[in-house]
Amino acid sequence: MSNSYGTLFRISTFGESHGPAIGVVIDGCPAGLPIDEVFIQSELNRRKPGQSKITTQRKEDDTFKVLSGIFEGKSTGAPIALVIENEDQRSKDYSHLENTFRPSHADFTYQEKYGLRDHRGGGRSSARETAARVAAGAVAKLLLHNFGITISGFVSQVGDIAAPHYTELDLDKTEDNIVRCPDPVTAEKMIALIEQVRLDRDTIGGRVTCVIKNAPVGLGEPVFDKLHAELGKAMLSINAVKGFEYGSGFDGIKLRGSQHNDEFINKDGKIGTKTNHSGGVQGGISNGEDIYFNVAFKPVATIMQDQQSLNKDGNIVTVSGKGRHDPCVVPRAVPIVEAMSALVMADLLLRNKASKI
Amino acid sequence: MSNSYGTLFRISTFGESHGPAIGVVIDGCPAGLPIDEVFIQSELNRRKPGQSKITTQRKEDDTFKVLSGIFEGKSTGAPIALVIENEDQRSKDYSHLENTFRPSHADFTYQEKYGLRDHRGGGRSSARETAARVAAGAVAKLLLHNFGITISGFVSQVGDIAAPHYTELDLDKTEDNIVRCPDPVTAEKMIALIEQVRLDRDTIGGRVTCVIKNAPVGLGEPVFDKLHAELGKAMLSINAVKGFEYGSGFDGIKLRGSQHNDEFINKDGKIGTKTNHSGGVQGGISNGEDIYFNVAFKPVATIMQDQQSLNKDGNIVTVSGKGRHDPCVVPRAVPIVEAMSALVMADLLLRNKASKI
Amino acid sequence: MSNSYGTLFRISTFGESHGPAIGVVIDGCPAGLPIDEVFIQSELNRRKPGQSKITTQRKEDDTFKVLSGIFEGKSTGAPIALVIENEDQRSKDYSHLENTFRPSHADFTYQEKYGLRDHRGGGRSSARETAARVAAGAVAKLLLHNFGITISGFVSQVGDIAAPHYTELDLDKTEDNIVRCPDPVTAEKMIALIEQVRLDRDTIGGRVTCVIKNAPVGLGEPVFDKLHAELGKAMLSINAVKGFEYGSGFDGIKLRGSQHNDEFINKDGKIGTKTNHSGGVQGGISNGEDIYFNVAFKPVATIMQDQQSLNKDGNIVTVSGKGRHDPCVVPRAVPIVEAMSALVMADLLLRNKASKI
Amino acid sequence: MSNSYGTLFRISTFGESHGPAIGVVIDGCPAGLPIDEVFIQSELNRRKPGQSKITTQRKEDDTFKVLSGIFEGKSTGAPIALVIENEDQRSKDYSHLENTFRPSHADFTYQEKYGLRDHRGGGRSSARETAARVAAGAVAKLLLHNFGITISGFVSQVGDIAAPHYTELDLDKTEDNIVRCPDPVTAEKMIALIEQVRLDRDTIGGRVTCVIKNAPVGLGEPVFDKLHAELGKAMLSINAVKGFEYGSGFDGIKLRGSQHNDEFINKDGKIGTKTNHSGGVQGGISNGEDIYFNVAFKPVATIMQDQQSLNKDGNIVTVSGKGRHDPCVVPRAVPIVEAMSALVMADLLLRNKASKI
Repeated sequence: MSNSYGTLFRISTFGESHGPAIGVVIDGCPAGLPIDEVFIQSELNRRKPGQSKITTQRKEDDTFKVLSGIFEGKSTGAPIALVIENEDQRSKDYSHLENTFRPSHADFTYQEKYGLRDHRGGGRSSARETAARVAAGAVAKLLLHNFGITISGFVSQVGDIAAPHYTELDLDKTEDNIVRCPDPVTAEKMIALIEQVRLDRDTIGGRVTCVIKNAPVGLGEPVFDKLHAELGKAMLSINAVKGFEYGSGFDGIKLRGSQHNDEFINKDGKIGTKTNHSGGVQGGISNGEDIYFNVAFKPVATIMQDQQSLNKDGNIVTVSGKGRHDPCVVPRAVPIVEAMSALVMADLLLRNKASKI
Repeated sequence: MSNSYGTLFRISTFGESHGPAIGVVIDGCPAGLPIDEVFIQSELNRRKPGQSKITTQRKEDDTFKVLSGIFEGKSTGAPIALVIENEDQRSKDYSHLENTFRPSHADFTYQEKYGLRDHRGGGRSSARETAARVAAGAVAKLLLHNFGITISGFVSQVGDIAAPHYTELDLDKTEDNIVRCPDPVTAEKMIALIEQVRLDRDTIGGRVTCVIKNAPVGLGEPVFDKLHAELGKAMLSINAVKGFEYGSGFDGIKLRGSQHNDEFINKDGKIGTKTNHSGGVQGGISNGEDIYFNVAFKPVATIMQDQQSLNKDGNIVTVSGKGRHDPCVVPRAVPIVEAMSALVMADLLLRNKASKI
Repeated sequence: MSNSYGTLFRISTFGESHGPAIGVVIDGCPAGLPIDEVFIQSELNRRKPGQSKITTQRKEDDTFKVLSGIFEGKSTGAPIALVIENEDQRSKDYSHLENTFRPSHADFTYQEKYGLRDHRGGGRSSARETAARVAAGAVAKLLLHNFGITISGFVSQVGDIAAPHYTELDLDKTEDNIVRCPDPVTAEKMIALIEQVRLDRDTIGGRVTCVIKNAPVGLGEPVFDKLHAELGKAMLSINAVKGFEYGSGFDGIKLRGSQHNDEFINKDGKIGTKTNHSGGVQGGISNGEDIYFNVAFKPVATIMQDQQSLNKDGNIVTVSGKGRHDPCVVPRAVPIVEAMSALVMADLLLRNKASKI
Repeated sequence: MSNSYGTLFRISTFGESHGPAIGVVIDGCPAGLPIDEVFIQSELNRRKPGQSKITTQRKEDDTFKVLSGIFEGKSTGAPIALVIENEDQRSKDYSHLENTFRPSHADFTYQEKYGLRDHRGGGRSSARETAARVAAGAVAKLLLHNFGITISGFVSQVGDIAAPHYTELDLDKTEDNIVRCPDPVTAEKMIALIEQVRLDRDTIGGRVTCVIKNAPVGLGEPVFDKLHAELGKAMLSINAVKGFEYGSGFDGIKLRGSQHNDEFINKDGKIGTKTNHSGGVQGGISNGEDIYFNVAFKPVATIMQDQQSLNKDGNIVTVSGKGRHDPCVVPRAVPIVEAMSALVMADLLLRNKASKI
């Protein structure tokens, strides 16, 4: 197991879907940072289940509690422990799955790797773990805001319905609708599709785009901990993610160098680039332009249909989704993508302090 | 800087394009592994410049020397240091670039991050560093071969010319042509396109696909060091990479769960899956199926055309590619992708030894 | 801050003396280990305050709660989070210290390093943090017991009263008296000395000796993570520790090689050594003999006497110990030394699994 | 194996006693540091064999070569690789030891841990590895000098001959004699003792004291990477070290709190302490006073006398020291202790940059 991320700003998450609690320990948050607990809760609320008609109807308040590291409203330099108690556990919903391997879930691989597994709600492999990331990411965001850095995620695709490029959108409008797509027309189509998918007792994939603005030049640690490599790892560590691309991404394959290169130009007295196929990263280091990337999510594996599978003994069984699940993860994935981005940026921001004498 | 990768099988690379040498220290290779030095050299030869008409014509033999860690043909458990001396350095080719920021290169970001830079041939940001990765990856491959695990990379796209899905190809034919595409018809088209691009004094992007076979069930360390997250980071740390996807990848966005789920079936007495949209990874852990993924490479930034840019003082200058460069990186990137894959797999193989009592 | 220890068996502790709770996340405990919660509590009881007349009279039950990582009595491979709520906080005892730097405490250095501090009871610098280590160490002990490895600490010196060498003692008798010295005659003298010191409103230093038996040959990771180097770091990280020596230790300085060398001999068919000046470690690796070492503890800094000091503004103030404190830490330090030893050994045991193919 | 030390200023050493070369990769040295290569060589000269009549007469020039990371005399932020070729290898001196386990050497434990070993000159377990540490430590010293921090080691004891406390010595005189004790009278006695020991074909232990001056307040990362815990680990990782103590150390056991506490006083307008039993470290963090500590070295295991031992098959054999060895390691250990101290301090200096916002 490896439940920690980060070098200097480092988090360790714990907890299972149906255990007493989940939580996170943040080690390395610089002392003296004002910790706005209302903001942390508001970030958790963006991720929590039951928030709209297109998410799971499971109810969890996801109220967090501070156990350590904050004194008189500020970080002290000591580890910050945040805990969220589990509430709406219907473990019985899962008792039929004790010996069954659900298709495209982690049941089989956990059983084989660890020799046993907490089957209730996916145990540690449940996306519930991401609530801890969102809490920690909120603290990271508070640190980044201190330096003027902002992070904006949004849903850019559901199934085959895609939003325009982020530069054509008003990212302040992301929270205006339940699917978290800042383009109202596209948002409506996405919502309609998700509702249809749910009626079909099925699920569908989607894409989250994330834009980081005002990052200083110099973040990223070549040659292995390049900015986009860390972002990529962080995104791919989120449940259901299948792909990551930044800047021109996979579309860049078809371009020629003469089209793709970003010409350096003077921007208000600073060195900037005319285009931004580089996605704000050159040589693994931020160049001061917008950092942007796409994250691909597969359709949720739990569907409300009968599927054939095997049990632990290798015998054929029929699995049918019970419980309450999301027909499409991306609306709730937006704050998770942002949180992981914030954790990457906070860590690289601190690491960069030692780049030169 | 962060020039190490891996937790238990850990490499640290060093060296600049135009310094005396590049190299790598491998720490954590288990003792008793027979080290086939001829194999290591053959891997380096697959990456070395000047190997065909569609690569850079720069000449480097890339002959490596063992400095430590091997005794009587076997690893001893001590760090294995491998060094490759730089030979064909025409540093003067770069003297005109001392104060110039080449578009879409790392010149500007290195200068800003470190306050100074070795401008000769890109210094540390040069893809020459990947030779050290290939040498280390060859050692990792030797370890994996011991467990029956094989890794096969190939060029699956150049510009808009794409090869069929890997399951329709004979991966043993990859080395049969200079572009490293196992489909001879597609390979010819790719070669023709690259030659045209070179005549145009331009460059073009491409894609490498990699397939890992016979990995045991259980590799990957949730929740952050998931198998595909480590692969993603490793790939994104390679020069010019813009994206990573595994299994269904970005195409999975459009699918429904009922289409995407991989049904568990009995395969010769073992539990396997009927389809493999999961790309051999479920919950971040290998499930015994083929692990496969795509890596997107942008067009090489150095083009043989005049481009406008800025110098250190912010003044406009004209940059024109000199030296000898690749019109398309993917043919030489295949062994690099394989090497990084091998390093990921070797590390996770060792880490998995502690998964259960 | 760096609140994690270990490479594969890794703990992260959190919590302040007067916050809501302290706790620990254990990441990397192999799956399938039966977790005896009664044993964990019994270890905490050995450390808890108020256990005898020679320790602080502060009352804390130190009851722990499992938040994650255990399912049906066994470890699952997921992180194990253990939390201990703080109960008997008399934070007001410390309000007079808000701006005062107590001599030989961490008040001044924390204030300077972090710019602010939680002054209540020493905050993060309080030895209360070691309760989390003891809880985690108990889990490590359970793992070690599985391999037959045992760890026995005892008080070998208080002030100038020292016990005989461990080989002349029956280590099963350590818990027979409140000072935790297995020699009853010496124990009585130690207890009398500590009582006198308390009457003098003073404190006194002491030494803990620890013996690890039945460790397999091969534990320790040269050249930096040598077994004794890891033990040394782990011990020195405990509050109030001033020194560490293993085997012959500082006394070895005076010996000649011909006296000090441990001759290899046949021991019941196994290769062993006649003497054990090496303390069970050669070249940083366990050799199968008893591993033993001494840990020096300074006298507790809080004394019930007036002392002159400075406040934050640099003005002279008089400090007088309030609250309830230990006149000598070593009786309660025994389980802490054992716990840190167990964490070192568990980690090296897992790391050694990758030493050869 | 674990051949790396440090978090931000991180070294990885490699090489065996009788392989082609030893060396080190330094990752994380801030860019822009002027690298004085003459100084690095002078540090290596202080450690090299054959430097005086009381050290081994083996001859090694220990000339180092820079492979990377330095451009126009300054660090670039890229890894600095330094290599020292082995010269005076008389591997045949060791051929008789191929199957023999020398008493108190690492032969047996390496053989058992790794299943094979490079027996020539101790291979990786040879103290020759410390030359790489001295080279890296010299770079760390250059960084520290930039901040005014100095490190002074000296021999404070050989056998039962001990020097006065460091505060009574002129540490500038350490290099005035071949034993590296700044007290000329004690030095003469030490030299005489070592010469006698050599005539006796024996070896003897010793102690190195090290003093770090002008460290800023705030270095050290509680709760595990405390300044003295890192120093302790670093020292204990050096060959032949048996113990570490700082400040009052083991002598502090006998003191009472009222004697041991360091009263805070005003020192030239700064907050300092009247006494320094704390050894410059409180709560694991530097407090601005001198940091000082003792390191105990055992007598060298190779003696020029017949000793009984076992071979690989468990049969009794007679071992007799051949080759050229030190009768006492401490004169040559002084620069090693300093180097490891410098590496610890450089790393903590960089880590402290992230302690507060």
